[in-house]
This record gives sequence, C-alpha cells and structure tokens, in this order.
Amino acid sequence: MEKLEMEAPDSSLVDKAKKPISKRLNKYERVFQPCLAEVLGTMFFVFIGCVSVIENTPAAGRLQPALVHGLAVAVLVAVMDRIRSGSHFNPPFTVAVCLCGGLELAMVAPYLVSQLVGGVLGAGMAKLMTSPERFSNASGAAFDLLRSESQLYRALFGEAAMTCLVTLVVLMVAVNSRTKTPFGPFLVGSTVMFNILAGADISGACMNPARAFGPALIANHWTYHWVYWVGPITGGAAAAALVRLVLGDQKLRIVLKS
Amino acid sequence: MEKLEMEAPDSSLVDKAKKPISKRLNKYERVFQPCLAEVLGTMFFVFIGCVSVIENTPAAGRLQPALVHGLAVAVLVAVMDRIRSGSHFNPPFTVAVCLCGGLELAMVAPYLVSQLVGGVLGAGMAKLMTSPERFSNASGAAFDLLRSESQLYRALFGEAAMTCLVTLVVLMVAVNSRTKTPFGPFLVGSTVMFNILAGADISGACMNPARAFGPALIANHWTYHWVYWVGPITGGAAAAALVRLVLGDQKLRIVLKS
Amino acid sequence: MEKLEMEAPDSSLVDKAKKPISKRLNKYERVFQPCLAEVLGTMFFVFIGCVSVIENTPAAGRLQPALVHGLAVAVLVAVMDRIRSGSHFNPPFTVAVCLCGGLELAMVAPYLVSQLVGGVLGAGMAKLMTSPERFSNASGAAFDLLRSESQLYRALFGEAAMTCLVTLVVLMVAVNSRTKTPFGPFLVGSTVMFNILAGADISGACMNPARAFGPALIANHWTYHWVYWVGPITGGAAAAALVRLVLGDQKLRIVLKS
Amino acid sequence: MEKLEMEAPDSSLVDKAKKPISKRLNKYERVFQPCLAEVLGTMFFVFIGCVSVIENTPAAGRLQPALVHGLAVAVLVAVMDRIRSGSHFNPPFTVAVCLCGGLELAMVAPYLVSQLVGGVLGAGMAKLMTSPERFSNASGAAFDLLRSESQLYRALFGEAAMTCLVTLVVLMVAVNSRTKTPFGPFLVGSTVMFNILAGADISGACMNPARAFGPALIANHWTYHWVYWVGPITGGAAAAALVRLVLGDQKLRIVLKS
Repeated sequence: MEKLEMEAPDSSLVDKAKKPISKRLNKYERVFQPCLAEVLGTMFFVFIGCVSVIENTPAAGRLQPALVHGLAVAVLVAVMDRIRSGSHFNPPFTVAVCLCGGLELAMVAPYLVSQLVGGVLGAGMAKLMTSPERFSNASGAAFDLLRSESQLYRALFGEAAMTCLVTLVVLMVAVNSRTKTPFGPFLVGSTVMFNILAGADISGACMNPARAFGPALIANHWTYHWVYWVGPITGGAAAAALVRLVLGDQKLRIVLKS
Repeated sequence: MEKLEMEAPDSSLVDKAKKPISKRLNKYERVFQPCLAEVLGTMFFVFIGCVSVIENTPAAGRLQPALVHGLAVAVLVAVMDRIRSGSHFNPPFTVAVCLCGGLELAMVAPYLVSQLVGGVLGAGMAKLMTSPERFSNASGAAFDLLRSESQLYRALFGEAAMTCLVTLVVLMVAVNSRTKTPFGPFLVGSTVMFNILAGADISGACMNPARAFGPALIANHWTYHWVYWVGPITGGAAAAALVRLVLGDQKLRIVLKS
Repeated sequence: MEKLEMEAPDSSLVDKAKKPISKRLNKYERVFQPCLAEVLGTMFFVFIGCVSVIENTPAAGRLQPALVHGLAVAVLVAVMDRIRSGSHFNPPFTVAVCLCGGLELAMVAPYLVSQLVGGVLGAGMAKLMTSPERFSNASGAAFDLLRSESQLYRALFGEAAMTCLVTLVVLMVAVNSRTKTPFGPFLVGSTVMFNILAGADISGACMNPARAFGPALIANHWTYHWVYWVGPITGGAAAAALVRLVLGDQKLRIVLKS
Repeated sequence: MEKLEMEAPDSSLVDKAKKPISKRLNKYERVFQPCLAEVLGTMFFVFIGCVSVIENTPAAGRLQPALVHGLAVAVLVAVMDRIRSGSHFNPPFTVAVCLCGGLELAMVAPYLVSQLVGGVLGAGMAKLMTSPERFSNASGAAFDLLRSESQLYRALFGEAAMTCLVTLVVLMVAVNSRTKTPFGPFLVGSTVMFNILAGADISGACMNPARAFGPALIANHWTYHWVYWVGPITGGAAAAALVRLVLGDQKLRIVLKS
C-alpha cells in the first residue's frame, strides 16, 4: 500500500525504482482497468461530442462542436492518463503509440475493441438524451458530409493530414521522452479543437474511427464510412513515421542515431 | 488528518514536518472558514452565472453562459481549494466526495447548507445588478426550459449523465490519489463548460442544485424544480460508484483489490 | 551574477535565503523597473483592449472584447510578474495588495501614476491604429454606456461586485500564502474574461480605472467617468476586507487568529 | 552550451551532470533536427491557419481564425520547443531571440530558410484540402486586406505594434531568465489569439512573414506583401530593444547594470 501511494504524481523517482510498477499493480490494474478506462473515456467523449453536434446551433459557426470535442479530449485524457500507460480513446493513437514502442502489441486489439464498444455506448447515450427530430436531422451525429465522389480526395487528404498532426502531438507529449510534458492532455485537446474549427466543413474533422463508428451504427448511416478509417489510420501511421525518422530522440529515432 | 497534510501544497516541506497541520490550524480554520468559503464561492459562482444568463445575447449560441459558468467554476475552485480540504460549491460533489472518503460525514450537512445559502445570496446579487425587464424575461436565470412531461425523461437522463461526468472528474483529480493533478480546477471547469455547450438546450445543463435553488427562490419559479435535484444527485452517486467499483486505485476501489 | 540566476523560477528556496533579494537587485531593479513594467504592461493592455472594442463586430456577442481583455491580462501579468513584486496594471489591485501587506506604501503612488500614464499611451496607440470613423463611433473605446441616472445604481453595484471578485482572486493567488498558485495569471485573466462576458452590457465591466481613464482622455469623453473610479476602488477595498476578515491565513487575517 | 543544458527539462539532474548535453547530442540533433522542426512546425501552422481562413464562416466574427492560429502556435511551440533551443516558426522571433543572445548567429539563416520553406509547404497543403472556389475567394489565405495607400500607415503600425507585443512575450518567457516560465507556449499562443481578435480587420494581424510568404507564393498574390515583412521585423526588433534596455535582467540588459 505504501508503494502504491508513491505512484501518485509527485513521488520521487528514486523510490519508484525500488520495485517495478508491474509488480505493484495487480492483474486487474494491468489489463482490465486500462480497457475499462478506454471504454468509459471513449463513451463519454462520443456521448458529449454527439450531443454537441445534434444540438448545434449554427449561430457560432463551428465553435460549439469544436470546443466540446477538444475540451472533452483534454479532460478525459487528463483524468484517465495515469491508469496505467496513457489513455487513447482513438484507434490511430493506439496504432501509432504501438509503432513507437509505447504500448505492447498484445494490448492493441483489446484497446481497439474497447474504443469501438465505448463509441457505440456513447452514441446510444446521445440518442437517449436528444429528441428524435433533432437526432434524425443530424443523422445521429454520424458523419454525413460526404455525398459525392468529387469530395473524397480532399476529405481523405484532410482526415490524414489533421490526424497526422494530432497524432504527432500525442507521440511528442507522451512517448518521445525528450519532449514529454505535463501539459500533454491540453495540447492534444487543443489540436482537436483547432482542427475542427479549421476543417470541419470539408470532412467533418473526425480524426477518430471510434467517433465515426458508434454513431454510424446507432443511426445506421454508412455512406463513405470507410473514409473515416482510411484517412485517420494513414495519418496516424504518417505521424509515427515522422517521429521514427525525423523528430524523435535517440531512443525513438531509427536513423542517424549518432 | 495526515491526509490533509498532503493537501497543502506550498509551504516548505521542512516546516510541515515539524508538526501536523491539524495542530497548526485553529478551530475557525478547520470548521468555519471552509463553510464560509463554500458560501462565498457558491455566491460568486451563482451571481456571475445568473448575470450571464439574464444578459445573454443569442448571437453566440450557448458560448457566453458556457464560458462564464465553466471559467467561474475553474477560478473559484482554484482560489479556494486550499482552504482546508477542497471546495465544492455543489451538493453532488459534496455527496460523492464523502462517499469516496474525501470528506468526513459531519461536514456534509454544513457544506450543503452553506451552498444553498450562497446560491440564494448570489441570485439576489444578480437581481440587484440587472434591469427588472431582463430579470423577469429570463425568470431570474432560474431553469425554465421544462414545460411538459414529455421533456422530463431526457432532461433527467441528461442531468444525471452530465453530472456523472463532471463528478467523475472531481473524484479523479481530487480524491483518487493515483490520478490527482494540479490541473484539477481547470479540468472541472472545462467539463462544466463543454456540458453546457452540448446540452444546455435540453435540460439547461444545471448539474448543481445550489445553482438551481437560489434563482428559483429569488424568482419564485419552481416548475419541475425537483428535476435539478434528482438528476444531479443521481449522477453524482453514479460517479462515486464508478470510482469505487471500476476506476479507483487500491485505496478507493472496494473490489478486485489484489 | 550567480545569485541573480537563482532568481529564476526553479531555484531552491534555501539558496535564496542566503542573501535577501533586495541586496541582489540594484536600485533600478527595485524602483524604476517595476514602474516601467507597470507603464508598459498597462499600455499594451489598454492598447489591445481598446482596439478590440473599436473594431468589434457584434456577430460574436461580447466574446471578442472579453477574450481580448482577459487573455491580455493573463499574458501581461504572467510575463511581468517576476519583475520584483507582481504586476498590477490596475489601481484597485495596487490598493488592495497594499492593504493586505503585499506592497510597501511608498510604491503605491508611483504604481498608480505609472498605470495612468500607461493607460493614456495605450489609448493613444489604439487611435493610431484604427480608422477615424470607427474610433469616433466607439468613442475611442471610452466607456459610453451610461446615459441616464437610472442606470447608475446597477452600474456602480456591478463594477464594485465584479472588481471585488477579480481583486479577491488577485489577493488569493498572489498575496495569501496558503492559496498562492503558479496559475495565478490565468485565474486573474479568466475572471476578467467571464466578468466581461456576463456584465459588459450593464456597466462595461471596466473594473479598472486606468483602462477607463486613458481612452476618456484621448477621446475626451467624461460622462459618468467617476463611476469607473468609485465602483472598482470600492470593490477592491471590499475584497481586501474579505481576505483580512474571513478568507486569509493566519498571517493575513486580523481576527480569530487562534 | 552550458545554458543549453538548462533548457532540457525532463532528464534527471543526476544524469545531466555527468556530461554536457552538447556531448550527448549528435550533429543531426544539433543542426539538422532543429531546422527540420522549423520546417514541419511552420508547415503545420501555415497549413491549418490557411484552412481556417479559406473555410471561415463569418458567423463567429474573427473567433475561428483567431483560435486556430493561436492554439496552433501554442501547441506547435510546446511540442517542438525542446528540440534543441526553442522553436520559432516566425522570422521576427528568430531575429529578436538572436539579438538577445538566445540563438547563435550561424543558425539564423538556416532557421529563416526553413521557416519560408515550411510556409510554402503548408500553403500548398491548404490548397490540396480546400475546394478551388473557396481557395480563390480567399486568395488562398494570402493577406489581401490592403487595397489602397491610405490603409498602409495603420497596417504598418498595427503589424509592428502587435508583433512587438508577441515578440516581447517570446523574449520574456524563453530568453530572459528572471521571467522564464513553463507556460511560455500558452502565453505566446494567447497573444497571437488576442491580437488577431482585436486587429485582424486592420492589417490581418499577420505578425509572421512566413505565414504571409507561403500563401502569397501559392496564390501568386503580392499586393503590398512588403508590409508583412517590414511591420513584423520592425516590431520584433523593437521588442528586443525593450528587453535589452528596460525589462531584461542583469544578464540581458545592457544599461543600468548595477
């Protein structure tokens, strides 16, 4: 018990070194609690994000959904981040963090499944809270901007570029030890926020297949749904490549090591 | 009492070690000052929140009241947090923190009474500052959205779900030692902000019976007032259950302890 | 030189104790630099604040001026705060900090004069940057809301109450040692922001005689100008009283000391 | 080089003492990585900034572009700041930091070239993501406000004054050791944000020749382009003078040293 308390943020590093953390956490805390945190975090994120879209009033441009999604990411990452090895709530983050050595391979599939389950639960909660008219007008907050082939290229490029940027921020603040910072959750949330403010009318600025999947399932809206998987995953992988090849420190970079 | 010592952040560690903080605080500081801080904090929060609603211009959607309530929570929690053991300004927070062992039972009733008194004072100040026309048009910032039975279910669910989320944030940043963080006040304020941005047109996104009670008394507007007690208290209790059963560390969790 | 470098934020407290700071700072740094910082800080604050009012577009409600004034306060306080003993840029802050023992009496008059000079310079810069039409339409960002006796009472009460709140925040984060926090500048700026968002259409939410005086002089607009002195100074004194009598720690509180 | 050691924040102090950081960084990390960080950071900043302008909806006043540019600066500075000696993404910052001794002269030209290359790449990405109609309506986010001689004086003054302020913030939070703060990136981003909110309709509130150059090249729009070089560089130099003569500590100030 004494040792676990030292896990709290301010504990001295020396003390922690005495016994590896994996010994001090039980199996529930090593495996199940992180997955449950992914389910709950993604659920609350998708829930409040969908409500903000279904209830949006256009008077303030894209500000309402942008602030809601950005702040929700910041808050949920911040409060669940220390439940083991960082919270993602987003498949491309999980993939990219794993590619950069920040998550063991065996946890990738459980994390992805947890995120999709959370996304469906959150979209369901949003349906419970909003009126049927508003819900169906907004397609239940599923991404319904894409209606013709001609939009696809720009939407794919936008999803990939914006997800690359936000995933790059995740990798720099949470994995690359030289640039790690306690402000990480706020930086990731701010990036989500400004991406939505800038690009939401082109592709929806989804950047997160779990956010796309949940409402798509609940509202049964699948038009061009694959865009929100291909774009973000490509962007996440590109961010991992940027860190592995260009921006990482000597531990992460695989070229020009010295 | 030992735990309390951990809370005071700035004093030099050397000095703290000399004698326990309970010896260094007199009775005024242990009992009355925290209650007065609850009165003053809730008063200023309800005051400025009500003014923002009474004076709202719809041009910016829900941004003005959302930013005012969210920032006011962040600021007031931050400046009064170290007056003993955390400031709440909100009954569900007090209940949930007590359920998680962060506040002794004897302080619950004094805290709740202080919050209600503060809410009434704040609503009175808002009446003094605003013109009679605007005050009555806005029902004195009492929650007057609910007008028929058909809205009740969604409003109750919304209040419970959003209060559950914000109370979960409170418990994670202020009680659960593994996820405690100095950014707590900002995270709680941000959650208030995005909840109002997303859900204010469904139930008002009150999440705080003291915020509901003060203006209701001053404006004598009690239609469906009970919703703003039942919803938030249910949500707060649900958050305490989530922490006690799923997300808490070994000290807080009552199941799967090792 | 070695010692001065230790003045930097992370220096150990022990080391600082060796030699009092007054010995390590020369006369320029003890007296003139703080006053010049007051001039420059108030100048930039009033400059950008006035531009935001003169150039305001009503599409976003009160958001633009509120964000500009609030963020400018946060930034300028943060960057100039360590030039000796805290930056104020606002007469009620100087008065209240002095009443709470955070500033020696001899510096009060130089600070107030510096703030008024800065306010005039800033208002002049705003005139240089804006077109004559917009400048005169906005009365040069002087406070011109008050046009009849009937508004006076609410405006005075509003200025006093809102300045009391923001000054209370200043005293708690910068003077009261038990609640001091490095987030101070952000908390003060946020309070300015939410006060303007809530109350700007009642009294202008000035809270700062230097912000009122500069534009009044440049635009020669003096109608009910006294309101922006009486209200804020009263509010600042009330905040000092709250800290001295109720919320302060044992060093600041003058009653119930133990 | 000793100073550089002080910059790296996270590594354990024990480890740092063993050998100076200049020994631990290889040539790639000392020279090429910082320049590549300037290219990538400026590229992403100009990309998302241009998208926000091309896709702007006037419903929210200047809020969308202001938040996007400000948050993007904060995030990108924060995540790339520790790749050697601070990230600039802006020629006046590079010039002013060098004038204050925070960057060796040999790195100035590589930094400036990297920033311009990044600006062009970012503007190109924005063109790929936006529809041709919107792109050409917005002149590709090149600054196209200035149409007659009569606007020039105010635009030049505005660019100089606002760039002076933001560069002053950069110097105070990143170079002047007495006022250095870990909140630096947020303070710089906030300053960009409130400057755009206040002054964007006068000169565009560019404050950054690299942000002006990239879109100007891609959209081939060069009317009064020189304003966005002369104004910002003048402002940056003025900020360096303010720090060197008035606000700096004994190490930076060249007058009244003791």
